[in-house]
Amino acid sequence: MQQNLRIPGPTPIPPQVAEALARPMINHRGPEFAAIIERVTSRLKYFFQTEQRILTFPSAGTGGWEATVVNLFSPGDAILSVVMGVFGDRFAKVAQTFGLNVTRYDVPWGQAADPDELIRQLVALPSARAVFLTHNETSTGVMNPLQTLVSAIRKQRPDILIAVDAVSSLSCVDVQMDAWDIDVVLTGSQKGWMVPPGLAMIALSERAWAATETSTLPRYYWDFRSAYKYLVKGQTPYTPPVNIFFGLDVALEMMQAEGREAIFARHQAVADVARARARAIGLELFAAPAVASNTVTAIKVPEGIPAKAITKAMRENEAVVIAGGQEQLEGKIIRIGHLGYVHEQDIQDAMDALNRQLQELGFRAPITIMME
Amino acid sequence: MQQNLRIPGPTPIPPQVAEALARPMINHRGPEFAAIIERVTSRLKYFFQTEQRILTFPSAGTGGWEATVVNLFSPGDAILSVVMGVFGDRFAKVAQTFGLNVTRYDVPWGQAADPDELIRQLVALPSARAVFLTHNETSTGVMNPLQTLVSAIRKQRPDILIAVDAVSSLSCVDVQMDAWDIDVVLTGSQKGWMVPPGLAMIALSERAWAATETSTLPRYYWDFRSAYKYLVKGQTPYTPPVNIFFGLDVALEMMQAEGREAIFARHQAVADVARARARAIGLELFAAPAVASNTVTAIKVPEGIPAKAITKAMRENEAVVIAGGQEQLEGKIIRIGHLGYVHEQDIQDAMDALNRQLQELGFRAPITIMME
Repeated sequence: MQQNLRIPGPTPIPPQVAEALARPMINHRGPEFAAIIERVTSRLKYFFQTEQRILTFPSAGTGGWEATVVNLFSPGDAILSVVMGVFGDRFAKVAQTFGLNVTRYDVPWGQAADPDELIRQLVALPSARAVFLTHNETSTGVMNPLQTLVSAIRKQRPDILIAVDAVSSLSCVDVQMDAWDIDVVLTGSQKGWMVPPGLAMIALSERAWAATETSTLPRYYWDFRSAYKYLVKGQTPYTPPVNIFFGLDVALEMMQAEGREAIFARHQAVADVARARARAIGLELFAAPAVASNTVTAIKVPEGIPAKAITKAMRENEAVVIAGGQEQLEGKIIRIGHLGYVHEQDIQDAMDALNRQLQELGFRAPITIMME
Repeated sequence: MQQNLRIPGPTPIPPQVAEALARPMINHRGPEFAAIIERVTSRLKYFFQTEQRILTFPSAGTGGWEATVVNLFSPGDAILSVVMGVFGDRFAKVAQTFGLNVTRYDVPWGQAADPDELIRQLVALPSARAVFLTHNETSTGVMNPLQTLVSAIRKQRPDILIAVDAVSSLSCVDVQMDAWDIDVVLTGSQKGWMVPPGLAMIALSERAWAATETSTLPRYYWDFRSAYKYLVKGQTPYTPPVNIFFGLDVALEMMQAEGREAIFARHQAVADVARARARAIGLELFAAPAVASNTVTAIKVPEGIPAKAITKAMRENEAVVIAGGQEQLEGKIIRIGHLGYVHEQDIQDAMDALNRQLQELGFRAPITIMME
């Protein structure tokens, strides 16, 4: 029985993409690969909404953060890191590991960053060279109001570097890198791109590019300058994950045919279904409606039912794979992913299954919620 | 027309492995992936010939070098780096980039390291904490006498760290990590393993593991301690390249069925064919017979014929993809890869094609060689 993979990445792979992954291997320094990386890069620009440099690395998304830190900064550089969950925390920790002077704006998990509070913190840190933001916090199902935050930061500090972790939002939700004036946008192949994990993608503004020249942190694998030097020749400094590129090439063609706006609308519609069905079952959403993510829905675990029992029953009895909570949210939430290759029926099926398994586990919807 | 991919990695993919690459995606934190990473790790131990820790990273092979440097060393640490081509040079440069005090033993390209000279250099550098060695130098087609070198180093310095780049040799050629007492052995999925690029694999001795505790270099993505902490739970710290694992799982099963010794013998036989055919055509081999690699054969470009014309004619007229030389060897050699998924007929076909295309390009074998 084929699983309904409903975690917030890796996501299911469309059949055309799966077929491409199995293509015969090619020379990564030959004309076929050069044509692919050129086409992929140009199509990525449409989804990043940028005309600037986009680099790729054989890596998980976490590598994109490390690459950003070691290429643009020097030990002691002050940065303001907005943390609202596991992944924002990881971004801040990478920066701390490499000796950056990190001030954290800790947002309670389940909420979005507040523009006023963010600006207050920014004003209190005039030495800040950068702000690190998570667009969509995969661990809490909260999506930051990115345009509002970026615009507030830019108004206050026209030249500060703004780095955005868009790992689980880009291509699913509108992110206008150039129009909003963002300096670093990073993502990973296993999220909205409908291909397996293994490739990190990073777009850099001219402002970010200039910072690579002054940074003193040592770098080799993640060196942006080296990656760009090879990219203009249709290559990468060392062996790229060729079969992920095969898949991404096909996925981007499908995505471009569907169109950016249609993809955003599909994610909005599917997320609306996930949230409406959860409430109809009598469950409570973890994120406030105004900031609920369009790519992952976090649901509070009903009292008296262990979270692990739910994810296990879903997997074993329904072949629906959902995620639990991480770190401080372990046991408190379950998460349903709806990004990339996802359609309404996938979510209807997942929520039918969730309803059945919760009943089996003894869940009865509170009367008050049933009457809403 | 299917290409005969005869570069020294990425290598062709067997049909069973290709099929596995296209499998439906799974949760990287679920029981299915845990079973795969456990099985893969245990089978890798058979080929690394070790009972010690083996870690994996979503990365090119170069990442394995960076991981070795940042986990085991501190700025200023003295190391002796044996350089006999592009990849040994890269290993030394990674170490220099991170502030290690690198002494290079530069071997003329096309030759192997000399044990006596290596020991002389080691004696002259009593502060050395490690020796970095390339087992098989992919850029020159030279294979170091690894056991001889390691045994000489170990005799001289029983506790020094010995790190071996076995990227293009491991699984094709005998490397006995535990028996020979090597501390770090690293490789990449696109070489002898018959799967696409995207996964680096690194084995660590107890001596190497102890060094991770005293190293002061900052590390996050490459952190061995974090990778091992997750491995014992059947996971990785961040999203692994799941479909490469699907492929590797199947490839390792095939390889184990064939058997270590039979695989080594197949590589020996295929390399013998490559060398014999090259000489029969009237071509000169770049590496001395005693140290010629069993995974890649470097051939001197005949005078008067541009190397690029050969690789182009082979690709366009024969669908045989071979590699040129790199850096100081560009234009001077061509390279035929014969590692991983390779059988005698692949090499016979490639050499038939080479013979035809060289004739077309005006090559006539020197009489002296024809009469040998």
